[in-house]
Amino acid sequence: MAQLRIALAQVNPTVGDLAGNRRLVVESARRAAEEGAHLVVMPEMVVTGYPVEDLALRNSFVSASVRATRELAADLESAGLGETPVVAGFLSRREGRSGAGGHSGQPAGAPQNSVAVLHRGRVVLTSAKHHLPNYGVFDEFRNFVPGDTLPVVRVHGVDVALVVCEDLWQEGGPATAARVAGAGLVLSLNGSPYERHKDDVRLDLCQRRAREIGAALAYVNMVGGQDDLVFEGDSLVVDAEGELVARAPQFEEHLLVADLDLPEAHDPGPAAAPDGADGLRIVRHTLSGTPVAPYEPRRNTVTPRPDPLSDTGEVYQALVVGLRDYVVKNGFASVLVAVSGGIDSALVATIAVDAVGADRVHGLLLPSEHSSGHSVADAEDLAKRQGFAARTVAIAPMVTAFERASASADTPLSGLAAENLQARVRGTLLMAVSNQEGHLVLATSNKSESATGYSTLYGDSVGGFAPIKDCWKTLVWDLARWRNAEAERRGQVPPIPENSISKPPSAELRPDQLDSDSLPDYEVLDAVLDAYVGTDKGEAELVFAGFDRDLVRRVIRLVDRAEYKRRQSAPGTKISSRNLSRDRRLPITNRWTV
Amino acid sequence: MAQLRIALAQVNPTVGDLAGNRRLVVESARRAAEEGAHLVVMPEMVVTGYPVEDLALRNSFVSASVRATRELAADLESAGLGETPVVAGFLSRREGRSGAGGHSGQPAGAPQNSVAVLHRGRVVLTSAKHHLPNYGVFDEFRNFVPGDTLPVVRVHGVDVALVVCEDLWQEGGPATAARVAGAGLVLSLNGSPYERHKDDVRLDLCQRRAREIGAALAYVNMVGGQDDLVFEGDSLVVDAEGELVARAPQFEEHLLVADLDLPEAHDPGPAAAPDGADGLRIVRHTLSGTPVAPYEPRRNTVTPRPDPLSDTGEVYQALVVGLRDYVVKNGFASVLVAVSGGIDSALVATIAVDAVGADRVHGLLLPSEHSSGHSVADAEDLAKRQGFAARTVAIAPMVTAFERASASADTPLSGLAAENLQARVRGTLLMAVSNQEGHLVLATSNKSESATGYSTLYGDSVGGFAPIKDCWKTLVWDLARWRNAEAERRGQVPPIPENSISKPPSAELRPDQLDSDSLPDYEVLDAVLDAYVGTDKGEAELVFAGFDRDLVRRVIRLVDRAEYKRRQSAPGTKISSRNLSRDRRLPITNRWTV
Repeated sequence: MAQLRIALAQVNPTVGDLAGNRRLVVESARRAAEEGAHLVVMPEMVVTGYPVEDLALRNSFVSASVRATRELAADLESAGLGETPVVAGFLSRREGRSGAGGHSGQPAGAPQNSVAVLHRGRVVLTSAKHHLPNYGVFDEFRNFVPGDTLPVVRVHGVDVALVVCEDLWQEGGPATAARVAGAGLVLSLNGSPYERHKDDVRLDLCQRRAREIGAALAYVNMVGGQDDLVFEGDSLVVDAEGELVARAPQFEEHLLVADLDLPEAHDPGPAAAPDGADGLRIVRHTLSGTPVAPYEPRRNTVTPRPDPLSDTGEVYQALVVGLRDYVVKNGFASVLVAVSGGIDSALVATIAVDAVGADRVHGLLLPSEHSSGHSVADAEDLAKRQGFAARTVAIAPMVTAFERASASADTPLSGLAAENLQARVRGTLLMAVSNQEGHLVLATSNKSESATGYSTLYGDSVGGFAPIKDCWKTLVWDLARWRNAEAERRGQVPPIPENSISKPPSAELRPDQLDSDSLPDYEVLDAVLDAYVGTDKGEAELVFAGFDRDLVRRVIRLVDRAEYKRRQSAPGTKISSRNLSRDRRLPITNRWTV
Repeated sequence: MAQLRIALAQVNPTVGDLAGNRRLVVESARRAAEEGAHLVVMPEMVVTGYPVEDLALRNSFVSASVRATRELAADLESAGLGETPVVAGFLSRREGRSGAGGHSGQPAGAPQNSVAVLHRGRVVLTSAKHHLPNYGVFDEFRNFVPGDTLPVVRVHGVDVALVVCEDLWQEGGPATAARVAGAGLVLSLNGSPYERHKDDVRLDLCQRRAREIGAALAYVNMVGGQDDLVFEGDSLVVDAEGELVARAPQFEEHLLVADLDLPEAHDPGPAAAPDGADGLRIVRHTLSGTPVAPYEPRRNTVTPRPDPLSDTGEVYQALVVGLRDYVVKNGFASVLVAVSGGIDSALVATIAVDAVGADRVHGLLLPSEHSSGHSVADAEDLAKRQGFAARTVAIAPMVTAFERASASADTPLSGLAAENLQARVRGTLLMAVSNQEGHLVLATSNKSESATGYSTLYGDSVGGFAPIKDCWKTLVWDLARWRNAEAERRGQVPPIPENSISKPPSAELRPDQLDSDSLPDYEVLDAVLDAYVGTDKGEAELVFAGFDRDLVRRVIRLVDRAEYKRRQSAPGTKISSRNLSRDRRLPITNRWTV
């Protein structure tokens, strides 16, 4: 056996910030060296940030990534860190074949989602992701060409195989090749977006693959937000029997250091021929053939997972990180939220305060003639509990001006037109304050509203980011209750007024209006919505699954008819396995109704 | 040689309207039979409409398509049309393998973009598209699994090979297989979206492929709009030497009938073994081995292309059809446009009148205190020339109400905030009238505005459809001039006031404002924009291409910073090779600036 201390750098890169991302790598390597690590592993495409989408098709961007990776190797060497190999993801291109255009069935310039081994000032080995995900939010067949090698690097006498993200999730390919290659350790570099419950699936998968390959497996994932996506970290190490030996926290930057006992490499026999490696060519490179001198290992850290009750807490954390990074990475100094006294805006404001601090959150109270007294009181209470600034602007004068103007043009407004008008006056005020003062406006729409179309386009849906757009209304309540309970547990004032949580939901667009006037109970509605939106089931399958036929028909109709509104909605943090944006791509013009 | 009369049905299917699409096929077959055709060819996925996007992942939808195709064969038989083979595209699934989920690297349920041969009441043969486009607007790796056969059907003694759309564009695969199979005629079923100049490329390609394969080639394409896409038809037939022998008009439903002299099939020798067919299995089916009795062929029709000057006219037609189908297929009775007296809204209103008729177009004049007298006069003139109803609502009272309310909340509006406010008051009025009366609001943004972000989110960008969103400002002027010239050519009143075309462009959001105050001349701007947006060039390459460095930097910065606005914009007809929607997928959070 050979000992090895590895460091998994769970960092937060920014798309396009190649200089900043390089600094992240050097800083991680420095800390890893201080911890005595023999090998440092960074996440997928850490040099460019991830996902880069169509930036991968720009030759200048690919060249910059290749150059930055080369310079990074030199940076590490000049910082005195060159002896410790660093494995990092970057954007590269397939060399030696014609960089044909899209029409030949592959992206122009043959970009690849690659991994590099940096050692003694040089890029000593590169390889590319083999299995390219092209489902859900991923478009990797559009942006990359697949790799066809499995790199195996001998580090201090241990054969270390390198795979990228999806390579681990798919049967065959790199996982099989790593077994054939007789790897003693597999490093998996990831940019794996958060979804509820994915951490359980991830651990199971790593355990299964380690046993299949017969090698220890180190999984490193990035943290932080990138538009709709948030990465949760949860980097971990399992041994060859699949036992969890080290695990990093979720949603925090972290350097996970683990001491491992690994099989010493022997020269590969004829069984390791490329033919046996599921079509992949095994590429070997020796950095150091001799195991490190025996040392006293430290106790590995397994960060405890939250108990089962706090799945909600995990979602809450994801929303905070997703919003914070959208604000910070896009250079906003502050955010603006219309607080109505209702639960959606109360939760969004609370997430915002947790994300960027109360001094960077601004509230607008925009009461109408239909707003109840408790709405204003609840919104004021919310701002006071959390200490963010709030201003009040009554919308009646604008609403009246629009109504008069419309009537004078022989178009008196009534019904839905009058209700939507109020929402749009509020949207216009929000945007005016935003334009004047530079805040990012946060939209307060939840997923139930967005799915059914029960929101006003250019009204309550305005905003540059929609923190809870992937949360069903029932989850919105759960999150609010969880956050208040968490405050109580810590001996703090619950941030959300109880009344905002417990009162019956209402948009207050007409006197005594309640959501339940036009929608079924949210427990029932969300269950049908989740089954329709979250799967590919149609009417018959939903009825077979036990839902009421009339309700199913109504929900399908509502959801399908609101597609045009969703196309114009702001991005927001994905927390489910299927959000209403890139996870679900449906035509607007669509007569299919069952 | 064997004679064959083929009919290419250039029809306009609707996504999801399986019953309506079936009727289209039967009606085409009836007309083809009346014309004495021996073979009828329908476009790609005519049964379901195209593209269906993630509807392909719904089992119930795939099953409905398979069932509808079977019933279609029976419909044809009972209509007395069963003897004439009909080749039609439909959505199917790969049978006989497990319908694994996305994680195995293929879409759930193994859906396929398929072609069926219908004869004597039965589906006698099916096959699936082999080359799946996954670039530009296409996501076919997400939605389909590729086929692995090349079907060759013997019809009246002629071996007819069937390929689907992209199969023809890619080297190798079906095109090679058709040559190996010794086909005498290749049928290509298409859903090929319009792009400027694509008709020239298409003809060249068909000619080249016909020569390579050594067989006549019949290309059938659908017409009509589907969200962002518009299909132009342009169905055509070339002989084995690549000579154009028949061509249908663009943008119109049409049955193109052509008489062909084709080589009589002989039984394939060992050279036609599957191994030689570029990995595809050749599947042969004989419907009738005997050539038709000799008959007097008719003269084939080659619809003349417009002369070189009317590339602009072709774009105009595309915009009319794209808008018309969005309105009609989504069930709107009428449209609403804010007419400002400027060129963008004048062109949009004119396209709308040409698309749905003046009685279904409603104009709103929304002058502000900064609107010049000629603006109102030009807008009124526009409505009068075209005979659509127009109402005037001065926006000052609403603007004043907002300004007072903002000031009273210690947020007096100035600069950009005040300018945007006017645009948003207009947007709110448009939406109010739309909600009250049921019109579809048309956004008037052009591509130059959308690219640079010189439009107001929730202001002039409001609308359910944006007819000119893929047209640079310079093209907007060209289109207006073309439309006026076309009217003059026909002895009609030019629909667009000359003043709207010739005056310097201005958003009139402050006194004496001109676009040229903040933007370079549109000729210069559009050239840089087209080079940056239309290609994957970065700063250095654009400068190398001859553009001024400061201008390039400014344009890149403007375009990149406006990505968040484009995410919230309405769909609109794609006419370029790269629109600002699905053709170009870039992160919002992006620090890459060169």
